[in-house]
Amino acid sequence: MTEARPILFCSDYGLADEFVGVCHAVMARIAPEARVINLAHEVPPQDVARGAMILASAAKFGPSHAVFLAIVDPGVGTERRPVVVEAGDATLVGPDNGVLSTAWEVLGGAKRAFRISSSEVVLQPPSNTFHGRDVFAPAAAHLAAGMDPAKVGDEVEVERLVRVEFPGARIEVGYVHCKVIGVDRFGNVQLSARPDDLDEAGIGGDAVEVRASGHGHRLPRRRTFAEVDRGEGVIVMDSSGYLTVAINHDRASKKMGMRPGDHVVLAASETSE
Amino acid sequence: MTEARPILFCSDYGLADEFVGVCHAVMARIAPEARVINLAHEVPPQDVARGAMILASAAKFGPSHAVFLAIVDPGVGTERRPVVVEAGDATLVGPDNGVLSTAWEVLGGAKRAFRISSSEVVLQPPSNTFHGRDVFAPAAAHLAAGMDPAKVGDEVEVERLVRVEFPGARIEVGYVHCKVIGVDRFGNVQLSARPDDLDEAGIGGDAVEVRASGHGHRLPRRRTFAEVDRGEGVIVMDSSGYLTVAINHDRASKKMGMRPGDHVVLAASETSE
Amino acid sequence: MTEARPILFCSDYGLADEFVGVCHAVMARIAPEARVINLAHEVPPQDVARGAMILASAAKFGPSHAVFLAIVDPGVGTERRPVVVEAGDATLVGPDNGVLSTAWEVLGGAKRAFRISSSEVVLQPPSNTFHGRDVFAPAAAHLAAGMDPAKVGDEVEVERLVRVEFPGARIEVGYVHCKVIGVDRFGNVQLSARPDDLDEAGIGGDAVEVRASGHGHRLPRRRTFAEVDRGEGVIVMDSSGYLTVAINHDRASKKMGMRPGDHVVLAASETSE
Repeated sequence: MTEARPILFCSDYGLADEFVGVCHAVMARIAPEARVINLAHEVPPQDVARGAMILASAAKFGPSHAVFLAIVDPGVGTERRPVVVEAGDATLVGPDNGVLSTAWEVLGGAKRAFRISSSEVVLQPPSNTFHGRDVFAPAAAHLAAGMDPAKVGDEVEVERLVRVEFPGARIEVGYVHCKVIGVDRFGNVQLSARPDDLDEAGIGGDAVEVRASGHGHRLPRRRTFAEVDRGEGVIVMDSSGYLTVAINHDRASKKMGMRPGDHVVLAASETSE
Repeated sequence: MTEARPILFCSDYGLADEFVGVCHAVMARIAPEARVINLAHEVPPQDVARGAMILASAAKFGPSHAVFLAIVDPGVGTERRPVVVEAGDATLVGPDNGVLSTAWEVLGGAKRAFRISSSEVVLQPPSNTFHGRDVFAPAAAHLAAGMDPAKVGDEVEVERLVRVEFPGARIEVGYVHCKVIGVDRFGNVQLSARPDDLDEAGIGGDAVEVRASGHGHRLPRRRTFAEVDRGEGVIVMDSSGYLTVAINHDRASKKMGMRPGDHVVLAASETSE
Repeated sequence: MTEARPILFCSDYGLADEFVGVCHAVMARIAPEARVINLAHEVPPQDVARGAMILASAAKFGPSHAVFLAIVDPGVGTERRPVVVEAGDATLVGPDNGVLSTAWEVLGGAKRAFRISSSEVVLQPPSNTFHGRDVFAPAAAHLAAGMDPAKVGDEVEVERLVRVEFPGARIEVGYVHCKVIGVDRFGNVQLSARPDDLDEAGIGGDAVEVRASGHGHRLPRRRTFAEVDRGEGVIVMDSSGYLTVAINHDRASKKMGMRPGDHVVLAASETSE
């Protein structure tokens, strides 16, 4: 007998309702041996791009043969396809709206894909509003228990799968234009720019000018938050490789008025040139 | 050796404190092989009826031989009885205040019940305020590990167990009187009425008049939220069989001012007759 | 083959972001057989003393051979040491800032300690900002899978480990001076005083005067909240042995204006003497 594969589960269901728990119950029935790991369930409601990014940030740290289950699904009940995608030794399960796409890139690219339709997989009759319970969780559990992905339904051309773009920056000489991707629990502000973008724009020195919400902030570049005094701002590279604006022991998002989606410009800091 | 049974755990403890985690720790000590699934822990504090409904909504999707642990317990430390109830192949553990009752109906009815009192089960000495840790979690874990339910304490007549009523509707010719049962993370408003109630009241057509909070809304009846345009309201059947008021890509609860407990009247929509 | 040890995981990461989930992913890769229990992840950001107390409150209820993983780490990326500490049959993993110290006291005292530095343990290259993923979770997982603690890095003198103090009270004749340690989901207010402190101060009778936020409240002493009428205040001993101020079916924290850190004085109640 083969071991059950672990399932990494990400959604925008939140933990206030029973949606996540019911999906777990379904998976425990189909694949009692499979370990199910909650990756994150507070993805902002219906924010496919954010869900994609969270999934990708975990993809290379989990077991290589994991089943990734990602449910951020504004189109539930419509014609968007529920799919299974193979990438590396991993298998991804979710709606075909791009939420899986950044993760499969991290995992080496989509190899094969299938539309989930088999009545051996989908709970009968499926509801129109809760495909997490009736379509996606059952598919993930069957795969974890050893089912061949080809048995969930007809093959789909991987070129036709919906993709979302990795958040990125636009470079000019002396300027990096980017966005706020997210704000974490500590108020740290993650930008859609990387250290390489600063190099490419010719922004050097040990400080950066960060322009956001109509204000400019001169922030030192450091390895970690704690290298500046309490209450001081700083720009660091976060654990996913993105530039992040932080204040030691305070909330940068609040103090600097930065929110997800905000446009941000990075420029050379005059005093550091 | 028999496999440990899975435990499905529901409470109003929330996840901000360590209550849920400490119950898990207790169960891991008593039944290290048992899988414990968090069903939902954000049941509104001390809302027994809501806890009962969440437990029931998961009951038929989990493993049939599961142990259900439900702790919503306004009477902790008083004379309300801690009980174990057998229903189908499942076993339910919680206070005898009705929180288990809708689940055991879904599972085929209560067969036998026992009062948890054995000192082999209850941690010694038990606290007066945290029976989740000292009484209920230990009982669930011992049952998961194979203990005969009759060993937790004296038998209780199942007819004497406390029950809560399933939320329902009152039907008049042309009108369905119901309540808001809950609001989920997406702002969808679940009503205590089902499609059959509309039929019984003689409300047909492809739209319904929804009267709540002093306002009337004419909403189309559809299979799913996404069948109306963004920003449009709609009434659908949710995954538990209840009617639900939603707005595509927006929060119906906020836009229509509907909150749990609110009285709602459904009527025929003039323009659809 | 030995069984994997269970891991009890506590942090201030919150559940809104993917930090906790990514740590779980890392542990599942290193120790696929180890059960990981979420103890609490909503420790107030960077509140080392609160994290220490939560860890200690669970320490004696979990499996005796558990690995405790506690990440509340304001100094991430600086020279504070990442450590493994042996206490009883348990092993604790976290930053050397005191967050582990109350738990190891509950578990019988620190026996040996090691600084986590081995490149067989730490993910390469480690980030500067997410040592949960790169240092602590890997160490916990390797220990759970059977690694000898001495292999994580050089030994550290246990006398030199950083400690935090258990919250306590200051006693005068007739008065107990204490603090609000925490407020739980139900609005119950936990104080840094125990029943013995009242005895020592000579405060007897069946009621206590509680002075906080400029107000005095005469509260009856009872075994449990439910022994007073709805809406009435009460003082009880909570499940960790601390005195707690509660209101039956209401939020004492809100009604009495008490918040974590507030100074509180307990005195004899005139009418009960």
